[in-house]
Amino acid sequence: MPTNTETTAEATVAILPALAGRISAYRIEDLDDHARRLVRTAFTDTLGVALAGSGFAGITAIRTAAGIAASENGSLVLGTAERVPALDAGLLNGVAAHALDFDDGNSALGGHPSAMLVPALLALGEETGASAPDVAVAYAAGYEVMIRLAYGLNPAHYQRGWHPTSTIGVIGIAAAAARLLRLSAERTAIAMAVAVSHAAGVKANFGTMTKSLHVGQAVRNGILAAKLAAAGYTANPGALEHRQGFLAVYNGHGDFDSGRIVAGLSGPPLACSEHNPIKLYACCHSTHGAIEAAREIRRSPGFDAGRVEAVEITVDPNRLPHTDRPVLTEALSGKFSLQYVTSRALLTGTVALADFDGDAHHDPATLALMSRVRVMPAAPGGRSNSFTATVRIRQFDGTVFTATRGPHGSESDTPVDPSLLRQKFTDCAGRVLPADRVTALSEALLQFPDTGTTVRELMRLAEVHRPTEARVTP
Amino acid sequence: MPTNTETTAEATVAILPALAGRISAYRIEDLDDHARRLVRTAFTDTLGVALAGSGFAGITAIRTAAGIAASENGSLVLGTAERVPALDAGLLNGVAAHALDFDDGNSALGGHPSAMLVPALLALGEETGASAPDVAVAYAAGYEVMIRLAYGLNPAHYQRGWHPTSTIGVIGIAAAAARLLRLSAERTAIAMAVAVSHAAGVKANFGTMTKSLHVGQAVRNGILAAKLAAAGYTANPGALEHRQGFLAVYNGHGDFDSGRIVAGLSGPPLACSEHNPIKLYACCHSTHGAIEAAREIRRSPGFDAGRVEAVEITVDPNRLPHTDRPVLTEALSGKFSLQYVTSRALLTGTVALADFDGDAHHDPATLALMSRVRVMPAAPGGRSNSFTATVRIRQFDGTVFTATRGPHGSESDTPVDPSLLRQKFTDCAGRVLPADRVTALSEALLQFPDTGTTVRELMRLAEVHRPTEARVTP
Repeated sequence: MPTNTETTAEATVAILPALAGRISAYRIEDLDDHARRLVRTAFTDTLGVALAGSGFAGITAIRTAAGIAASENGSLVLGTAERVPALDAGLLNGVAAHALDFDDGNSALGGHPSAMLVPALLALGEETGASAPDVAVAYAAGYEVMIRLAYGLNPAHYQRGWHPTSTIGVIGIAAAAARLLRLSAERTAIAMAVAVSHAAGVKANFGTMTKSLHVGQAVRNGILAAKLAAAGYTANPGALEHRQGFLAVYNGHGDFDSGRIVAGLSGPPLACSEHNPIKLYACCHSTHGAIEAAREIRRSPGFDAGRVEAVEITVDPNRLPHTDRPVLTEALSGKFSLQYVTSRALLTGTVALADFDGDAHHDPATLALMSRVRVMPAAPGGRSNSFTATVRIRQFDGTVFTATRGPHGSESDTPVDPSLLRQKFTDCAGRVLPADRVTALSEALLQFPDTGTTVRELMRLAEVHRPTEARVTP
Repeated sequence: MPTNTETTAEATVAILPALAGRISAYRIEDLDDHARRLVRTAFTDTLGVALAGSGFAGITAIRTAAGIAASENGSLVLGTAERVPALDAGLLNGVAAHALDFDDGNSALGGHPSAMLVPALLALGEETGASAPDVAVAYAAGYEVMIRLAYGLNPAHYQRGWHPTSTIGVIGIAAAAARLLRLSAERTAIAMAVAVSHAAGVKANFGTMTKSLHVGQAVRNGILAAKLAAAGYTANPGALEHRQGFLAVYNGHGDFDSGRIVAGLSGPPLACSEHNPIKLYACCHSTHGAIEAAREIRRSPGFDAGRVEAVEITVDPNRLPHTDRPVLTEALSGKFSLQYVTSRALLTGTVALADFDGDAHHDPATLALMSRVRVMPAAPGGRSNSFTATVRIRQFDGTVFTATRGPHGSESDTPVDPSLLRQKFTDCAGRVLPADRVTALSEALLQFPDTGTTVRELMRLAEVHRPTEARVTP
């Protein structure tokens, strides 16, 4: 039987105290233009996709199961005008942010930083009356912890089968929440140590409703860890490097590099140099290169979607097993059809959320174009496991168009075009909010964090006052 | 970036469906006398220690942090007369049940089954209006899953640094809750699969307030998993054997035996043959052998604690580093002092909760006796890592008494003496309840589950109506 005495801390490097010491000293002045743009993009993109995902059926199931009651001084449940305790808002909005798998990602993390950080900081920020700069600094603090842990743990952590978004992310949320609560460095380390005991989420549950639950629960538990640390809870500040701590237990002895976690810690925040490519289309990432190539061709002089004779899409063989889908059984399956999304991009210039709704896949013009699309594997020799696609189109008049593109924003030094970010936000938020609110909210967000807007004001703009039909299916 | 498409189930053995098929068919008639005694002991012992632990400061911290509000149709928070949603009651009462580390254990699990199962089933049972046989069957169902998983995962799982109570336990709670909710076998498997994504808790946080938080959170998450499965949530029923599922991710590829999990599944419930030794004293398990030996000597004709000249305690060297403590700095440190607890047992015939309160360690008779106690390591050659102790006492009149004993109930075929169980319950529950309620509650519990009492009636008896002074320190 375990007793309290059978293990003792035997830290050699105090990782959590080192991280805590750095991030608890962050100030808004530490965020340069790059970092401000990263934070702005994160809040705009994530709030948009979370509003669009707020109709996900799992959210109602969680509210009922957990018995979550309204709380006047709490935080907004997206898709409603109701407030609940911050932990519960973090849970529900975290699920909403990831339900469509349309939120941003980070390649070092191998996961989704903003679906964690944004719901957590909006929920806790509303409860505590935080300003936009407050949550921007807290975002950078939590982000620093997530990405640094990933540096030391990946690729082994990801490959083993963990969902780093939640396993690594929960520790980052504790850090972000601790920063927002202005905890001392010592208490911030304890917050992260409490969070270590909540790291969970395996890839076996990908492709099910439980994947987005990982996010909501990790948001909830990260906030809880910070609040408990604030209240004097105890945990082991050596909980990372302990022989029965996070590094050894989750990755296996020796299968991590703790030095990388704390290397260069005195430098600028990682938010000043890292990147979170956003998804511009709510479909499988493996189809985004073909969509971009189709969009380029559509802008070419002489192109006419009505005169297309044949479309050839060539992609890395790894992209094909799940995206070569010439016939759709339901609109949702279009998310995994190169034929469908490329046709929609050629016809309309983009791929929108509505393209995966209801009867969208019965559109005659789309069906006609899809019948002319052929999907092929690229010959061996290119970059392995590439997301780049080549689209070649022949018109009846003999004209040929060719374009080769990767997913937008996949080159880490190319920030997303602000007009595309605004268009995505409008498409997403417009699923539940009237047009004037969408505009007001996007204007506030596109100045974030250099704005006088507080989180409470932002959340008032995001309230949904009339019940809207649930238009989102998991 | 992870997408929903990068992993797929590739189950070879459908473990969760096999377990679910068996336990969803359990009936009260499947529990023989041994099983009924096991369940009765579990509920009596655990409700007692949870009442005693309900004053733990961490519980108030969690209530405040999580914003847990009263809910009329909810479940009792032990130590109060208030009801909250079942998930929250499970969280708070789970922490209470393990806060004193005084709850039962199971050697196969390497952890504490009843601190998980009892709070979960009382909370959910009160909410749903369950009978005593209902929760007894649900206990057996959850217990079956916990112990079977442990058969396949331990000792590797325990040695790696997981806290099996919560990591394995959360899946057992989902099973128990699913049985109480009378879910189908298919939904029961999904409940356990959702729970897989919540398995957490590492030993690095032992010896801190976070250890009992593992229990509370796992109780909460296990109930949530079952309720979400009931509401139609999806998860991967192959989440154990999937190459990125529970077995491979938590234990490492090959470091488990899935065959042992489902072996002999058509036989009687494991509750008919397994054992959960209970702790009779709220101090380190390494001191329990000496306490039992001291109790035996005290009953010997001619023994007189006032005439003791010298006490020699001989124990396995592994017991000594944390329990050879001749001087106490505070009453709590007495939990790890062979000198103190053996003296108390010689003077009073037992070791009670009050012995670790306030100024108890300043008692002059105890101090006088402690000064005559010498602690020694046993010579090599006996059973390795034994918990057995030899106490040898010489009186001034030259009489010598010797007794060698292990912890009570450590021999798996020796059930605990009912009078000792009742005495422990009275000591524990009496910390927060008046004597007449303690008697009424213990009478109801000692007939459990062969009683007409429902969980709601039991919980009404357990209500604490006047605020009592918090007498428990973590």
